[in-house]
Amino acid sequence: MRRAGARIAVLLAFAFGVAAPAAGQGGDPLPSWRDGEAKRAIVSFVSRVTNPKSPDFVPPEERIAAFDNDGTLMAEQPLYFQFYFFLDRIRELASQHPEWKDEQPFKAALENDLAYLDEIPRPELERLVLAATSGGTEREYMESVHRFLAEAEHPERGVRFTKLVYQPMLELLAWLRAKGFRIYLVSAGTPELIRGFSEKVFRIPRENVIGSDMMMRFDVTGERPELVREPVFVQPVNERSGKPVNIERVVGRSPILSFGNSDGDIEMLEYARYSGRPHLALLLRHDDPEREYAYEDGAEKALALAEERGWIVVSMKDTFRRVFAPFAKPREAE
Amino acid sequence: MRRAGARIAVLLAFAFGVAAPAAGQGGDPLPSWRDGEAKRAIVSFVSRVTNPKSPDFVPPEERIAAFDNDGTLMAEQPLYFQFYFFLDRIRELASQHPEWKDEQPFKAALENDLAYLDEIPRPELERLVLAATSGGTEREYMESVHRFLAEAEHPERGVRFTKLVYQPMLELLAWLRAKGFRIYLVSAGTPELIRGFSEKVFRIPRENVIGSDMMMRFDVTGERPELVREPVFVQPVNERSGKPVNIERVVGRSPILSFGNSDGDIEMLEYARYSGRPHLALLLRHDDPEREYAYEDGAEKALALAEERGWIVVSMKDTFRRVFAPFAKPREAE
Repeated sequence: MRRAGARIAVLLAFAFGVAAPAAGQGGDPLPSWRDGEAKRAIVSFVSRVTNPKSPDFVPPEERIAAFDNDGTLMAEQPLYFQFYFFLDRIRELASQHPEWKDEQPFKAALENDLAYLDEIPRPELERLVLAATSGGTEREYMESVHRFLAEAEHPERGVRFTKLVYQPMLELLAWLRAKGFRIYLVSAGTPELIRGFSEKVFRIPRENVIGSDMMMRFDVTGERPELVREPVFVQPVNERSGKPVNIERVVGRSPILSFGNSDGDIEMLEYARYSGRPHLALLLRHDDPEREYAYEDGAEKALALAEERGWIVVSMKDTFRRVFAPFAKPREAE
Repeated sequence: MRRAGARIAVLLAFAFGVAAPAAGQGGDPLPSWRDGEAKRAIVSFVSRVTNPKSPDFVPPEERIAAFDNDGTLMAEQPLYFQFYFFLDRIRELASQHPEWKDEQPFKAALENDLAYLDEIPRPELERLVLAATSGGTEREYMESVHRFLAEAEHPERGVRFTKLVYQPMLELLAWLRAKGFRIYLVSAGTPELIRGFSEKVFRIPRENVIGSDMMMRFDVTGERPELVREPVFVQPVNERSGKPVNIERVVGRSPILSFGNSDGDIEMLEYARYSGRPHLALLLRHDDPEREYAYEDGAEKALALAEERGWIVVSMKDTFRRVFAPFAKPREAE
């Protein structure tokens, strides 16, 4: 890690009761993590699998880490980040669909009827997502992504959505990368949206983002080739058991570290032990109503399974010294 | 490029009439390519897109190259490499399927009836491939891959299949990598087979192999999690227009260099101009009956389109100074 003031950081770390696990490498690689079971588990695991003298050593090519995105790397309340993008797309496409103003769930989307949308039935949600993510070319879709990322603001916090990433997670990503891990973002959402900021915000290249894809058609009838997005999901959709299947398909290896926050991540957490290598599975618990949000909706099963499966539950309240990243690029460990 | 005897290599290159395009970088990066239109097009393209002072400069993150595998990087005659693997799998699985000995196409596979298999109808071929690539776990399937790669020999040449890679293509892969390209192998075949040797032979990591995937089921009923291969192709299958669609899905970027050898690669060659960046599309022509094979079956349309589309046709006979790689690891340009 190359960092000015590393010595001061170590002193401060001790002053505030934080273990300095990477002493000798320039200080604490996870300064926003408070000392405790979660931090110790991470530091111990990463140290063991990267130490060639350790019986738990894992060669670099097998150091795969899989992270969920929404609620694991960034805030997902009051609604998924992705969902605001879908609403934005529906408004953008509405001029081509005059019938939407009288038809649910589009009516609710156009009127920003969050009460309706919050209780939206699953088939209507799928219809909304299919309409929002198809109906044009991949090129146009990426333009919508970039416009949304540049303009849209979180409704409660008044900042760009991509500012609501968790500082402790940025530190963990940077440290894992410095330790030779290849990191994949594995989201149930539309991968194009995450690819629109993953390189800048997470330093994770687009090809390391796995999401729920739409079928596309390669069209060479015009002046230049286009990929036309069709309203059909490529199977398997990237949630629950689709996550391990798609990681295996795309990466050809399984993660030794998985990090999620909801029931949709259960299979990905289980998959961390597929390789038979030392492994670590972590579950972020949203229990910090003051600084973020407190909720267990959609994470009940995962939290109930954690102890039995040996997953480390990371309490945001107890573990994160600071929740959100400063409004600047994350510092990179090297 | 770090290489002993670089000066001698340059002298030899001149002696044999080869341009030394990378002079000043330690010699000709493509010594097995004879001078001519193909080599000049490649050298010019790579030089332009990697020179920050050139108007054709392409930043490193957008330097994506897509290569077909069978017939582009390695021999595919008298039958696809993949096909021998499928026959091997059928023999391996036959004890669980006594009915196969009387049922086509399995009977032909078990009796090694190449005359029948050479004319196999498409529906029977699909049945054979589905049977060969499913019927067990991903773990067992990878074991079959490794056994096949370690034991099977090319029927006419008596060497391991992975020895039949083209030396000029290994040089091109190494040079592109040294020039900051990220290289993807994009094959209609089963990606697991290519992943079984891509790192060792091509120095291409598993996650850069895109093929035709089978649906899998995540099974946690046993002591450890397993991925069970089901006899259903994930759509789109990775041939023809499936190639651009899957590259876009997996990489999130389009190639600026595409290299293929058959009609199944037409859309991938077209896709090289999708980004609007400078691009290069190349088509290997198998016209060397003495050193390799001479055939245009299955490449007629691609060859007919080449001139109109500006694709560079690479004649193996005229361009490859040497066809097969020596039975050693490829030299790496650095």
